Amino acid sequence: MKLQIFDSTLRDGAQGANISFSVDDKIKVIETLDNLGVDFIEAGNPFSNPADMQFFQRIHGMKLKHSKIVAFGSTRRKGTSAEEDSNLKSLLAAGTEYVAIFGKSHIRHATDVLKATPEENLAMIFESVQFLAQNGKKVVFDAEHFFDGYKTDPEYAFAALQSAAKAGAYALCLCDTNGGIFPDEAYEITKKVCDAFPDTVVAIHCHNDGGLAVADSIEAVKAGARQIQGTLLGFGERCGNANLTSILCNLQLKRGYECIPEEKLKDLYESAMTIAETANTAIPQNQPYVGMNAFAHKAGMHADGVLKYSSSFEHIDPERIGNKRKFLLSEISGKSAIYDKLKNYFPSLDKNGKEMSSIVSSLKDRALQGYQYEAAEASFILLVEKILGSYCSSFDLISYKIINEQPAIEGKVASAIVKIRVNGVTKIAASDGEGPVHAMDLALRSALSEFYPEIAGVSLTDYKVRVLDSDKATAAKVRVLITSANASDSWTTVGVSEDIIEASWIALTDSIDYALLRRN
Amino acid sequence: MKLQIFDSTLRDGAQGANISFSVDDKIKVIETLDNLGVDFIEAGNPFSNPADMQFFQRIHGMKLKHSKIVAFGSTRRKGTSAEEDSNLKSLLAAGTEYVAIFGKSHIRHATDVLKATPEENLAMIFESVQFLAQNGKKVVFDAEHFFDGYKTDPEYAFAALQSAAKAGAYALCLCDTNGGIFPDEAYEITKKVCDAFPDTVVAIHCHNDGGLAVADSIEAVKAGARQIQGTLLGFGERCGNANLTSILCNLQLKRGYECIPEEKLKDLYESAMTIAETANTAIPQNQPYVGMNAFAHKAGMHADGVLKYSSSFEHIDPERIGNKRKFLLSEISGKSAIYDKLKNYFPSLDKNGKEMSSIVSSLKDRALQGYQYEAAEASFILLVEKILGSYCSSFDLISYKIINEQPAIEGKVASAIVKIRVNGVTKIAASDGEGPVHAMDLALRSALSEFYPEIAGVSLTDYKVRVLDSDKATAAKVRVLITSANASDSWTTVGVSEDIIEASWIALTDSIDYALLRRN
Repeated sequence: MKLQIFDSTLRDGAQGANISFSVDDKIKVIETLDNLGVDFIEAGNPFSNPADMQFFQRIHGMKLKHSKIVAFGSTRRKGTSAEEDSNLKSLLAAGTEYVAIFGKSHIRHATDVLKATPEENLAMIFESVQFLAQNGKKVVFDAEHFFDGYKTDPEYAFAALQSAAKAGAYALCLCDTNGGIFPDEAYEITKKVCDAFPDTVVAIHCHNDGGLAVADSIEAVKAGARQIQGTLLGFGERCGNANLTSILCNLQLKRGYECIPEEKLKDLYESAMTIAETANTAIPQNQPYVGMNAFAHKAGMHADGVLKYSSSFEHIDPERIGNKRKFLLSEISGKSAIYDKLKNYFPSLDKNGKEMSSIVSSLKDRALQGYQYEAAEASFILLVEKILGSYCSSFDLISYKIINEQPAIEGKVASAIVKIRVNGVTKIAASDGEGPVHAMDLALRSALSEFYPEIAGVSLTDYKVRVLDSDKATAAKVRVLITSANASDSWTTVGVSEDIIEASWIALTDSIDYALLRRN
Repeated sequence: MKLQIFDSTLRDGAQGANISFSVDDKIKVIETLDNLGVDFIEAGNPFSNPADMQFFQRIHGMKLKHSKIVAFGSTRRKGTSAEEDSNLKSLLAAGTEYVAIFGKSHIRHATDVLKATPEENLAMIFESVQFLAQNGKKVVFDAEHFFDGYKTDPEYAFAALQSAAKAGAYALCLCDTNGGIFPDEAYEITKKVCDAFPDTVVAIHCHNDGGLAVADSIEAVKAGARQIQGTLLGFGERCGNANLTSILCNLQLKRGYECIPEEKLKDLYESAMTIAETANTAIPQNQPYVGMNAFAHKAGMHADGVLKYSSSFEHIDPERIGNKRKFLLSEISGKSAIYDKLKNYFPSLDKNGKEMSSIVSSLKDRALQGYQYEAAEASFILLVEKILGSYCSSFDLISYKIINEQPAIEGKVASAIVKIRVNGVTKIAASDGEGPVHAMDLALRSALSEFYPEIAGVSLTDYKVRVLDSDKATAAKVRVLITSANASDSWTTVGVSEDIIEASWIALTDSIDYALLRRN
């Protein structure tokens, strides 16, 4: 049976501490989720600020293969009409086929927080859903605090759903807003709703405050829910939203539901990594299914057991979702996965040749140094060019010197001198800048410009830094990711060093090398 | 009803990647768990190496208030007698009242991994338990792969339990060794066992590979299990063991079971912190119940809701387990939330005075610049000191100059010169380092050391960088977070600039200012 997966990484997920997305980040998240075959992507609240509204206008032009974009808002305000409510008007203006609006289904929240009469709250739900439906929208009604509301006053909680259903809601979403319910409650209460509303999609939206969001969602599906709301990596306020990777793997691999297209399952691990990198955060290593160590074996006996009989210590085959079995002391990388990635770039590469072996072992060495190529394919391609002997350096570095000083000189805190050699010709150039990497980038481009005028069309569009082993404090290694773009393309490169300047330099030179490689 | 809590942090938990304990660490973990009122502490395998055996001899002398120490081992080897089995003899020598031994209950593991006949495996279980029981031990029998074994051959899985029970086992522990079962299966299968063995303690031992270990354990208790095995913080191989903090909070706060003494609940947060620090790891900020952000509210509407009606976004009162409600300080925080945070530091602050208005508007200004104080309370306190006029700078910066260069000089890529003034005395100092911030930190400490010898006791423990508006690439602002610690405390500071060196400098000076402020 097909279940609908509804991802709210860009809306509820962005409420998580330390999570924020730029416009480019959001586009990348949407592309990743769409590629994975997620059904719905809740992309934000167009009413909350003009930037979000502009974002909806921008994604209007995106061609998605599978996903539907959902705009999020609330029921109309107390004391206005739906037609005059600026929040509902924003939802229409967002231009999506689907919208989600939240409303109160807990009587005490209606009366004590909203200060509305029970009847007025029901009218707010009915009129808001009806207004949106009559304007051609498919409406997901998020019944806030539904489970607690049901436990306090089941009739009123049902009346709230009834108001939405009568007004033409596409889906009724049962929210465990404070994240406190148990799986057995999720089952029993969802079952009652499914029995009462057999013709409407029932959705489940859980939070993980009790550590039970995955189980709650699974039990709700068993009870008849057909749409699962959550965030792919469990991002969200407090303890996070329901983690969709865990839910969809459990249901699709073990219970026979279809959550995403079967052939997309193997992309799950990489998609998760991409979204984590985009959010500039790391997936916990022990995260079920998509954690780096989810299939890592430390105890000798376990490693032995898993080789004799894999299900001893592996509940699924990790390759099915693109993850890998790992032995913590002797890492084994998957040659097939690497070959799969390279065969388009290097059609003559032999999967079983010794070049592939060198690539695999080099990748392992680099991983130990802190390099990760999941989000930096351009650097990986250059690494392979070097191993294959086809790499041609665009310049040699003779020296650089980057100076930061306070007080600043004429408002500039950083200056850089870069000396390079191209085809035997030496060139030195300097620049100042807003910071050391900025000054270095400008100086390098200035030195290269007479040799490679085309790099004027390349610009850096994104710069990210991650501290590895952060308990080593300022002597820790850092990983820098740089995204560059020209008129037709964009690519990401990586550098790792204990020195942030050197890490940036490595990523920067890769970025320019790759631009020049692609030109040829 | 009383449930037994059985912690395996020192045994199964130590299998987790990056987890290892010294002897002193182990003692500290035992003291912490004992103080919390945990019933059983599985302290290791005395047979695995001489150090572990010595450790059991050492803890023999500890006076514990509540907990029983458990030694862990396995059933006798194939082809020996129980009396001659050195592993069982080690268990006797460990000198504990309780022992836990694992054995096979899955027919295919008995025949394919152990290469024993089904009958011999049952004899191994029976004879091992009988030998230990006859020597005065209370034996917990860990039925490895019990759930998968039951699904493959229920009669054989039951025969394994029967062998242990007949031989006098104190408890039968049902293990989901590969972590793959669902809560409904945990309930149904545990129920069958409890019905069949009404006179023996039934225990549950889950792993979190499906993200369901907490729910599985809770369902097993509902089915009649009376002992819960896990690790306090979920440490363990792959995705970890069942997290006991989540399980015991759910069961004790919401379902009326007694897991630990009621008056000890309020020590839970601190106990969790102690164990995490002992293991040199951090509790994930979004960890249910004991995470730093488990009760942290970011969205203005949520902060507002929780103040009006706390259960809106809090499933329990965080004070009950020693955790705290937090409002993440951001531009969307209201005055109440900010006052709440400040009133302990500044008791004379008037909530409705004009100083509070300055603080609120200053916080908004700083947020626009990119400052976030949610994780950097120390910098926020210093900011408020400045607004209130009570701030006293520990030094003035005259100048700094940080140089990065390639080729490196004697292996060092960065060097720093820092010139400061303290009480009219000028001091200049220099250092080299692994990177610019490292060199700067060392140079500043060197310059300050003669004025403030106590900063020798302060060290940087964590350094984080985040690029804001990363689409401005290398001219984008960066936010640096620095965590520092002395023997008794730790604090985090923040700096923002387009120049990563300046951002680091701001966070670093705040960190030192705060250390000196706290001293007074």
